[in-house]
Amino acid sequence: MITYSIDELFDGIRAGNRRLLAKAISLIESEREADRVIAQDLLTKVLPFTGKSQRIGITGAPGVGKSTFIESFGLHVISKGHTVAVLTIDPSSARSGGSILGDKTRMHELSQNSKAYIRPSPSHGTLGGVAHATREVMLLCEAAGFDVVIIETVGVGQSETEVASMVDLFMALMLPNAGDELQGIKRGIMEMGDIFVITKADGEQVNQAQLAFQQMRAVLRLLRPKSSHWSPKVFAVSALESKGISDVWECCDTFFTESEKHGVLATQRAAQNKHWLHSLLENRLRQRFFEFPPVADQLSTVEQAVIKGEILPTLAAEKLLELLPFISINTTR
Amino acid sequence: MITYSIDELFDGIRAGNRRLLAKAISLIESEREADRVIAQDLLTKVLPFTGKSQRIGITGAPGVGKSTFIESFGLHVISKGHTVAVLTIDPSSARSGGSILGDKTRMHELSQNSKAYIRPSPSHGTLGGVAHATREVMLLCEAAGFDVVIIETVGVGQSETEVASMVDLFMALMLPNAGDELQGIKRGIMEMGDIFVITKADGEQVNQAQLAFQQMRAVLRLLRPKSSHWSPKVFAVSALESKGISDVWECCDTFFTESEKHGVLATQRAAQNKHWLHSLLENRLRQRFFEFPPVADQLSTVEQAVIKGEILPTLAAEKLLELLPFISINTTR
Repeated sequence: MITYSIDELFDGIRAGNRRLLAKAISLIESEREADRVIAQDLLTKVLPFTGKSQRIGITGAPGVGKSTFIESFGLHVISKGHTVAVLTIDPSSARSGGSILGDKTRMHELSQNSKAYIRPSPSHGTLGGVAHATREVMLLCEAAGFDVVIIETVGVGQSETEVASMVDLFMALMLPNAGDELQGIKRGIMEMGDIFVITKADGEQVNQAQLAFQQMRAVLRLLRPKSSHWSPKVFAVSALESKGISDVWECCDTFFTESEKHGVLATQRAAQNKHWLHSLLENRLRQRFFEFPPVADQLSTVEQAVIKGEILPTLAAEKLLELLPFISINTTR
Repeated sequence: MITYSIDELFDGIRAGNRRLLAKAISLIESEREADRVIAQDLLTKVLPFTGKSQRIGITGAPGVGKSTFIESFGLHVISKGHTVAVLTIDPSSARSGGSILGDKTRMHELSQNSKAYIRPSPSHGTLGGVAHATREVMLLCEAAGFDVVIIETVGVGQSETEVASMVDLFMALMLPNAGDELQGIKRGIMEMGDIFVITKADGEQVNQAQLAFQQMRAVLRLLRPKSSHWSPKVFAVSALESKGISDVWECCDTFFTESEKHGVLATQRAAQNKHWLHSLLENRLRQRFFEFPPVADQLSTVEQAVIKGEILPTLAAEKLLELLPFISINTTR
């Protein structure tokens, strides 16, 4: 698959060559062992040129108007002198390689803009896989000079948590359904969001959007803010009428200024890197443990016994762990 | 330490002998390897006699009036013909063995009642340790015939999540501070609670409690319920004036009836057991990995490099995993 050297890819990325950036991303996303080794070398080479962007995560259920919002938001950010990369994650889309055409159609004007780059992240089946590739794709985009990177997710499964753990600012979009119908908000989102955006605040929905806005603000006031330097903000916007979009971007700007001022950005990214290391270690350790033939042979029997209450989980865990050679030598605590 | 045979302990527990139950619990909580082996045998022996209780988790920040509520609530539950075991977890209390006297003083009347049993769980330093012992202590209490087991936590760190993962019903207590001051609610709690109780709804605080009650109800309506068969309920109570306590217990009763009816209880417990097995496996796998000498030697250097952005977490993870003999043989994916 790879027909370029690491140096060619590196130079291409640094020069902002879209075609080579795309090649490099495909390499990163490849599951072939040979590609992975090269990908790691390339990433190591670009590493010093990463980390300079503002990383923004955006989530929202299907139908909330994410594409329309991101198109409008992205164009506004570009008009302020930035370059924008949009990485879209849809864990529900299969391993077809994502819906490139779909994304380009649904963000038509943005995808045509020379300061924007839109790239879907295929899901690789597992969510860990998504996050893994997406983080690294983000690094490539930063090395290519994009100074705002938007990661979009529809929020299936754990994808919001994954995305929140790799961005600086997390934004949640929601429909202008006030009252009981706001139940669409997944609870965890309330914890993660730095900015909440009520979409489609136009036409007949203006009043509803206003009501939803007030309710959200009331709810947020009741909850303990996740950090001491920022309390979550709410906006009602209309991408259709370009209303409120610039306010959201100004708020992002303030967020980043405040984060810089309090030294939070660097601390948060260091913590994210450490967390990333540990979650990789844990995932792979777990994966290899469960794939270790003696464990794989017994797991489902043991699990069934635990589920039926025939054996205590503590005892079952010890039985399975004893199957590992290196582990049983060492510690018995 | 152990001067009783497993059979003696088993018979004592089944006969409801408090002194032998306490001995057995100390055995479970012991960190000595020899004790742990005996403890597992004892647990295996009592296992068929467990699972018959209603397991209720109660959380609330210090000062919210947990002891007063649990005393009042426990006595009410006993008046309805039940027997109640209260296990208290306070991760902030050191390994002194818990604050037995403290708990007995703060729930004086309940601790004197022949149908109640109050036992603090020492924290063992780690939260995993708390949960580990507490689950097993709960099983012993069930084998001893208690048909309502209350697990209380002040909710430091992850303890609420741990407790929520071992009970059938999770209850959160909060002060009658309306508006901005309700910020005391940890956000995650909103996701976990089946019943929310506003305490101290008496004297001058009656109006405030009423306001807090309405606000909580509004907030809960905005959030997606965690299960389809139950939407969280809110109560304002006064333990001092015994107001609302019986309503909370009736609500618990309804919860259990509904859960039984929908077959949710058995399913949830099976899932909890499976989850317990997996979290034990993961914790111990992780612990032994990080204690494995070659890994322990290099970890902090690698971590620092990751935090400083000098090496990619992916590469760092591979380096560390390569140190494991059994793991590198097998799979390279």
